[in-house]
Amino acid sequence: MHVPDELIQFIAREKKFFIATHINPEGDALGSALALALALESLGKETIVYDRDPVPEPYRFLPGHERFTTSLLSLTPGAPPLILLDCNEPERAGIDGVPTSFSAVIDHHETEKEFGQIRWIEPRAAATGVMVYALLKKLGVRITRDMATNLYTAIAIDTGTFRYSNVTSDVLRAAAELVDMGADPAAVAEGLYETWSKGRFMLLIEVLNTLEITGGLAITVATKEMFMRTGTSAEDTENFSNFPRMMKDIEVSAFFRETEDGWKVSLRSKGAVNVAQLAGGFRGGGHRNAAGYKTRNDLKTAKEELIKAVTNMNISKS
Amino acid sequence: MHVPDELIQFIAREKKFFIATHINPEGDALGSALALALALESLGKETIVYDRDPVPEPYRFLPGHERFTTSLLSLTPGAPPLILLDCNEPERAGIDGVPTSFSAVIDHHETEKEFGQIRWIEPRAAATGVMVYALLKKLGVRITRDMATNLYTAIAIDTGTFRYSNVTSDVLRAAAELVDMGADPAAVAEGLYETWSKGRFMLLIEVLNTLEITGGLAITVATKEMFMRTGTSAEDTENFSNFPRMMKDIEVSAFFRETEDGWKVSLRSKGAVNVAQLAGGFRGGGHRNAAGYKTRNDLKTAKEELIKAVTNMNISKS
Repeated sequence: MHVPDELIQFIAREKKFFIATHINPEGDALGSALALALALESLGKETIVYDRDPVPEPYRFLPGHERFTTSLLSLTPGAPPLILLDCNEPERAGIDGVPTSFSAVIDHHETEKEFGQIRWIEPRAAATGVMVYALLKKLGVRITRDMATNLYTAIAIDTGTFRYSNVTSDVLRAAAELVDMGADPAAVAEGLYETWSKGRFMLLIEVLNTLEITGGLAITVATKEMFMRTGTSAEDTENFSNFPRMMKDIEVSAFFRETEDGWKVSLRSKGAVNVAQLAGGFRGGGHRNAAGYKTRNDLKTAKEELIKAVTNMNISKS
Repeated sequence: MHVPDELIQFIAREKKFFIATHINPEGDALGSALALALALESLGKETIVYDRDPVPEPYRFLPGHERFTTSLLSLTPGAPPLILLDCNEPERAGIDGVPTSFSAVIDHHETEKEFGQIRWIEPRAAATGVMVYALLKKLGVRITRDMATNLYTAIAIDTGTFRYSNVTSDVLRAAAELVDMGADPAAVAEGLYETWSKGRFMLLIEVLNTLEITGGLAITVATKEMFMRTGTSAEDTENFSNFPRMMKDIEVSAFFRETEDGWKVSLRSKGAVNVAQLAGGFRGGGHRNAAGYKTRNDLKTAKEELIKAVTNMNISKS
């Protein structure tokens, strides 16, 4: 992985940075932003760390999470140069109205737009955290336990703690180095996976009780009534669509979540089954193994449409 | 980790080995035994790879799994020298009746007995697979993709894919090296976690529906009737006791499984809560975070006893 020279020069040149990441942030966005902020501060720089949304409760174990602000007020009249992390266009971070003189992008997502004077995009990197770790090493930062914990968390969440197909030996080696610098794998895993509220767990049970299997397709459902009964909300359903994948014969898992005006359908698949293509048929999109779409149909019709589309896909595992 | 010289000499000296591991084998036992057998064969040795029980269906993705035999017939009249893996007494492997002239033990469990002429016990090793990997390196074996896959699986299962407190930077580094030698992290994770039968998933849902929470204690139950209804058996409940641990406020998860003559109770805890101590009060045992016991009481009485014992423990997280 090659860290661009102009990014190093830009960081050396400036004194203050506006670090922003995408809305509805998760571990890679949060951990990457915090590690970078802590590192820049250790070099005597100032940072403003912004997300449109507050740090979700499960991520408040991340060292320095209180640095995040949801306010853009301090940026008036003019913002310092921007470092945009884990996304590559200002709209994704909700900062498209903010005037910035200079922008650098650090991201591992594919991009279609040409935003930023410095654009460091590595679609093959497992996580933005891997890129920030490479950057910190090139900057000669002494990586503290707090930085290491943030970077380890970023890498852990985007690889499903080293279970996804983006795991390479370099990713495992980076994780090993971060453990040497103080990251605690078990504490991070407990923070990521064992901090559910009772309501969220009760919601999962209710959702699993809706399971219907048609061939290689599993469908589960969360209704507004279930959210009310368990005192939960949409963000509590993160990862729910993955549970039916545990079954060997399930190729596609579809999770229907009731919204104000219909249903949001999250699709997950294994191996060769392309759910981005499936979602595209319903004017949605995503990646090969994780995609989604919205529908205004009633639940029965929406399920039938999906079952028909999956049946027509002629699924075969690679 | 220091591989004993006498183990190297023993392997150099002998031509044929009887490799055995514990009954009800899981990934560390199976992967360690297969990697060692493949390695010894690559050095021109012969091996017999034995387990009292067949390789469980989910582990039949392990390269070479068909080498395992459940028959001791080929050992009459006399067995070749024994290498006992992932346990340290012949009773645990169901081979206490087999006459062996010489025995070597490779294990990461604490031991109370003095079995074996060569005893290589490393209670701090995350998995027996880590030890076998060190042994193979010291033997100068060229590690193939098949050996690497078996060793990676052994390490992955015993660390919960790098989520448990036994994960060190050396463990992650070993995993990285095994990936360089051909192990595929995503394929192993799919083999380990996404090969459930439908019946097993249905059983999980039924079990989760029995959830009762008392303070920091979660109780779930599997009855014989549930096994019959879902076409499953006791081995399908592996890992069930861990699910309620996902909840932040749960300190102890107890899973009651109905047996021929009562209930088998599996206990799991987080952090400082010592369930070995709790199980000891019911004439059971185990480790600090994973223990169990049996009871002949009816379910209501058994639950009440446990709730009382947990209440008296005065649980406080470290």
